[in-house]
Amino acid sequence: MSKEKPSLYSYFRSSASYRARIALHLKKIDFKYEAVHLLKDGGQQHALNFLAVNPMGQVPTFVDGMNVISQSMAIIDYLDSKWPEPRLFPQNEAERASVIEFCEIINSGIQPLVNLKVGQTLEKDLGATEAQVKQWRQGFTVRGFQALEKILARTAGTYCFGSQITAADVFLEPAVFSAIGLGVRIEEFPLIKKIHDRLSQVDAFKKAHPSNQPDTPLEN
Amino acid sequence: MSKEKPSLYSYFRSSASYRARIALHLKKIDFKYEAVHLLKDGGQQHALNFLAVNPMGQVPTFVDGMNVISQSMAIIDYLDSKWPEPRLFPQNEAERASVIEFCEIINSGIQPLVNLKVGQTLEKDLGATEAQVKQWRQGFTVRGFQALEKILARTAGTYCFGSQITAADVFLEPAVFSAIGLGVRIEEFPLIKKIHDRLSQVDAFKKAHPSNQPDTPLEN
Repeated sequence: MSKEKPSLYSYFRSSASYRARIALHLKKIDFKYEAVHLLKDGGQQHALNFLAVNPMGQVPTFVDGMNVISQSMAIIDYLDSKWPEPRLFPQNEAERASVIEFCEIINSGIQPLVNLKVGQTLEKDLGATEAQVKQWRQGFTVRGFQALEKILARTAGTYCFGSQITAADVFLEPAVFSAIGLGVRIEEFPLIKKIHDRLSQVDAFKKAHPSNQPDTPLEN
Repeated sequence: MSKEKPSLYSYFRSSASYRARIALHLKKIDFKYEAVHLLKDGGQQHALNFLAVNPMGQVPTFVDGMNVISQSMAIIDYLDSKWPEPRLFPQNEAERASVIEFCEIINSGIQPLVNLKVGQTLEKDLGATEAQVKQWRQGFTVRGFQALEKILARTAGTYCFGSQITAADVFLEPAVFSAIGLGVRIEEFPLIKKIHDRLSQVDAFKKAHPSNQPDTPLEN
């Protein structure tokens, strides 16, 4: 069991899966990519063979031997404990808290409000139009980005926190990808834009990009 | 500065503030309670004297000397580093990941969708009625509680993870308080109900309860 490669259950467009992929590639962990299509067949995350792995039916799910972990914060924390190089959460308690705070503005402040399920609920239960769902998503993204930009004014160097890539960058880049897809003008957030331009040149971020996964459709 | 007590900027009804208060009381940290009323005066979190402390205008905010930390996950991680007893995040990497996963189902899976700002946006931008907002909140709460109940079937002992209180319990109890306020029937989640009954008897949880804060109104 311990000889087997770990697996990542992932969907190419899922923002949280993208975070997990970046962390895996930064740490150069050899893993098996298991595609779970969130729309095809009524959502493959509800299929019995995936529910047997993770009864929660969520991606990303990381499987390492007996350990089955979902939630990107939990996965990245686990990777950081088991494969500490390069370290994504700083060891100094105050720096570490600042990086977690930044990640959580994205993880709990933006992403839960712009995801697929929420859009579906807005349409189904509240009769929201496509334009209203887009405006909702843009609104919560812009509000979160305003907070991130303020933090970056104090913390940014080459990357979000000084000169080393941290978990903050791992969370930022997928949020920027989503924001661009939503038509948010990221030029209005110059520090986010500058860091995004740099991160998009880093090999691990390129490998993890939604356009470059085994389940990315050809036309993407 | 290091001689000064740390401060918690808190609102008695805020679920994330409640989490921070539980952790502070569990660790018996002597702190100053600074009340920030999220509704009075158009929201005191937008007032200049609070923005001078935290430009993000969010509660909870924990101030320890020069360190100003918001986001409950970041605050509790910081407390766990600086005041390690009792430890809320296990040290074993797999157990730690499971506890973080549980916390994040609440922190990013439930709470962001049921908070004050989201309710206001549903009403203002989408013309949702009070009943629709309540149904929205109940729906996302029930969906999250179903996931938590499944996890607890594997992990629960006296508390969420075995016999020791962990961060999972610190996140669960405020979520149960919100759920009850929303009219969710927690009897339908027997493990959550059982753990809630136990936690509500623990001194630190009583001290942290919304009904028992300096800013709790008399009629509460």
